[in-house]
Amino acid sequence: MAEDKLVSRSEDFNEWYNTLVLRADLADYGPVRGTMIIKPYGWTLWENMQQALDRRFKATGHLNAGFPMLIPRSFIDREASHVEGFSPELAVVTVGGGKELEEPLVVRPTSETIIGYAYSKWIKSYRDLPVLINLWNSVVRWELRTKLFLRTQEFWWQEGHTAHATHAEAQAETLQMLDVYLDFARNEAALPAYTGRKSASEKFPGADVTYSLEAVMGDGKALQAATSHNLGQNFARAFEIKYLDRGNELQHCWTTSWGLSTRFIGAIVMAHGDDQGLVLPPRLAPHQAVIVPIYKSEAEQALVLEACQQVRAMLADAGVRVIADLREGLSPGFKFNDWEMRGVPLRIEIGPKDVAKESVALARRDMPGKAGKSFVPVAGLAAAIIAKLDEIQQNMLARATEFRDANTSHPRDFAALTAAVVNGFARAWSCGKPECDAAIKEQTKATNRCIPLDQVPGGGPCVYCGEPATEQAYFARAY
Amino acid sequence: MAEDKLVSRSEDFNEWYNTLVLRADLADYGPVRGTMIIKPYGWTLWENMQQALDRRFKATGHLNAGFPMLIPRSFIDREASHVEGFSPELAVVTVGGGKELEEPLVVRPTSETIIGYAYSKWIKSYRDLPVLINLWNSVVRWELRTKLFLRTQEFWWQEGHTAHATHAEAQAETLQMLDVYLDFARNEAALPAYTGRKSASEKFPGADVTYSLEAVMGDGKALQAATSHNLGQNFARAFEIKYLDRGNELQHCWTTSWGLSTRFIGAIVMAHGDDQGLVLPPRLAPHQAVIVPIYKSEAEQALVLEACQQVRAMLADAGVRVIADLREGLSPGFKFNDWEMRGVPLRIEIGPKDVAKESVALARRDMPGKAGKSFVPVAGLAAAIIAKLDEIQQNMLARATEFRDANTSHPRDFAALTAAVVNGFARAWSCGKPECDAAIKEQTKATNRCIPLDQVPGGGPCVYCGEPATEQAYFARAY
Repeated sequence: MAEDKLVSRSEDFNEWYNTLVLRADLADYGPVRGTMIIKPYGWTLWENMQQALDRRFKATGHLNAGFPMLIPRSFIDREASHVEGFSPELAVVTVGGGKELEEPLVVRPTSETIIGYAYSKWIKSYRDLPVLINLWNSVVRWELRTKLFLRTQEFWWQEGHTAHATHAEAQAETLQMLDVYLDFARNEAALPAYTGRKSASEKFPGADVTYSLEAVMGDGKALQAATSHNLGQNFARAFEIKYLDRGNELQHCWTTSWGLSTRFIGAIVMAHGDDQGLVLPPRLAPHQAVIVPIYKSEAEQALVLEACQQVRAMLADAGVRVIADLREGLSPGFKFNDWEMRGVPLRIEIGPKDVAKESVALARRDMPGKAGKSFVPVAGLAAAIIAKLDEIQQNMLARATEFRDANTSHPRDFAALTAAVVNGFARAWSCGKPECDAAIKEQTKATNRCIPLDQVPGGGPCVYCGEPATEQAYFARAY
Repeated sequence: MAEDKLVSRSEDFNEWYNTLVLRADLADYGPVRGTMIIKPYGWTLWENMQQALDRRFKATGHLNAGFPMLIPRSFIDREASHVEGFSPELAVVTVGGGKELEEPLVVRPTSETIIGYAYSKWIKSYRDLPVLINLWNSVVRWELRTKLFLRTQEFWWQEGHTAHATHAEAQAETLQMLDVYLDFARNEAALPAYTGRKSASEKFPGADVTYSLEAVMGDGKALQAATSHNLGQNFARAFEIKYLDRGNELQHCWTTSWGLSTRFIGAIVMAHGDDQGLVLPPRLAPHQAVIVPIYKSEAEQALVLEACQQVRAMLADAGVRVIADLREGLSPGFKFNDWEMRGVPLRIEIGPKDVAKESVALARRDMPGKAGKSFVPVAGLAAAIIAKLDEIQQNMLARATEFRDANTSHPRDFAALTAAVVNGFARAWSCGKPECDAAIKEQTKATNRCIPLDQVPGGGPCVYCGEPATEQAYFARAY
């Protein structure tokens, strides 16, 4: 329900986000500090995201499986960086069935360790490779500062886990899944994220290399939207995942993992939303179109509601995710605001005049006011709506790309970088020394988001220390 | 991989089941006692079940949502029967982020309590009702005796939770969902389960009435395959779920919950499996058909593999879930056994003679030997396969119905009941006194499974105490 106006994005982006997530009925706070309930509207969005991702995972040969959420505490300790990274965040089960447990169990913060346990049992020979498995589940990390979708004590995600015979295959898988995420982000979520390699200090605990998607939010800040890790042989050694190669020699496998979470919903909200509420990309929106009837008299009402039902049925038959808002006692204006808040891409208004003219009025969510209005005949409406949804999807991607580029600068010195990261990304020469990244963070609050794969040849002076650098990196303040 | 023969069902049903679940690659044991890993083949079966159920839930107006897995311990205590039923089975988180928690959290054993918390926040007026939500998740119960799929420390399921304005609406919902489960069981899983009301001692902790599906397994034992609960106002009172009615009076809601879990996979295994392995119903099978090439020379191989690929593409285009088993170095006989173990409904054999005759050989999993063999021209093959899969589905349901009926007796006295429940169901007059149910259990190991809704008029003497009874009940030994 859209009772009041939102605070504007420019006034207080943070409050705008927090209020919008609640107001648009995406999520609510759970009873335990830092937990989140995803409400049906938010969950339907997540289901649409899941389907778009799952299709891509299966097309690249992966199958889903189910792994236990409770993991022996000792598993976490087996990989040195992993335990260091995750120990402070664990939720620990110490009592089961009324008794103190001999060995405490942790609620999975991620599943590399229990996957390692299973793969070491399942993999015997090169014939068993590659193993390409994905899990859809939720994980728990004891976060101190939480925010709906962006950082919650429990979050939902998918975690892919693969094992390969060679380093080259594992690396190809890692990069393939980064591409899958980028394709999903661009073509489903209309989010033209940057991709690249994480610096040593930002990589996943236990990975050799981490790659990430970094999306530009409406306030110019970065949101890490997905990660893909080449784990090298780190977990294979810790869990003895070995195979007999063609020469009958025992070898350690090479493994990868990659994940995208409900955090991505936060990215969609913050990249596309405006002062009226959410703006959802048609390909993921729970409702792609909403029909709002407009009438005064009872005679008009009967006429208009019948037309609404007919249009609804016609569009549903054509595969459009459409609803008719036939709630009584609410004005059309109230309904307009309500569905704008929830980000429905297309509104279809039907009044007595439209019925008489055998047409409907369309209003685009991505283009408020007159520019987004049109009148379309009922004959051929389904095809017109499908084309319009596609146009909205393309427009959202084009606009987000333009925004991303307009908010990415290329500073040559530290003063320029400092100014740039106040509300945008900076792509700058970076020598790669952790000290430089740390100093930049300390002085500007911006972190090294990633080192893009598309490097320009040559080099330049590091934006912080001035020493020769051969790579550029993206710097931004991050969620 | 089907290395050895299974022990036969008649020899040792229990060992047959345990071995088959592993051998067919459905699941494996997890590292923590009583936990289960569902492998990709088992998980794909579960995904097909999920889709078939989810379609039905959405068609009856339900939407999915995501709720936290960690629940304050005190929530469980608020409903008297609930705490009594679940306290002994809880997994308790006492440490989070390295610190002892002020209030311990439990990993959800089921979500009625946290749903109660949320619904009390969300529901204000009769206009907000009904609330129709379903969750797909996993829950943890500290079970002492575990068995893959049937009883595991963590299991996957769906749990529906609804709130209504009246008792009548809640009751209608409870029975509707029982019907949905029965429809799913019959028409997707080919399982003609019995349905009925649970006796007072067997109902869900916190429910006014519990209804269940009771399926007949291959050894004549019962498996509770799904439950639907009318929770009355018990949770509404415990969690203050109230609404303003049309007369502006504050009323407690009436709530329901209903669930079906990965346990149902065990029911499919035990109802349809045979001495060669699984027999999966085509509508749920991960692979509906497997193509096995047969060749000797290299020239034959090229010819046959090309035909296999063409047939595979043709069937996949027609929407059949088909794979071609092109593994090298394995004999056709080995592959036949392997896919029989995994229960693929239809095998398609293609050899050089078939290629020459432009036909294929089909073998039905539900009909071993010559009876299930046929030769079908490649022209029109997709339609023939689709018809054959439908025939298999119908045959499996008919056979399971026949088996169920043949293994259900109608004893008039306790001696006859005692004999009947050794390997079957008994439908008998039951006075409903808990003492009679307890005595029957004590002396025969059979429990009151449910009191069917389709009662015959009149009455008879209670099968145990001989007192007048007006209802019949199903008794059986149960998993």
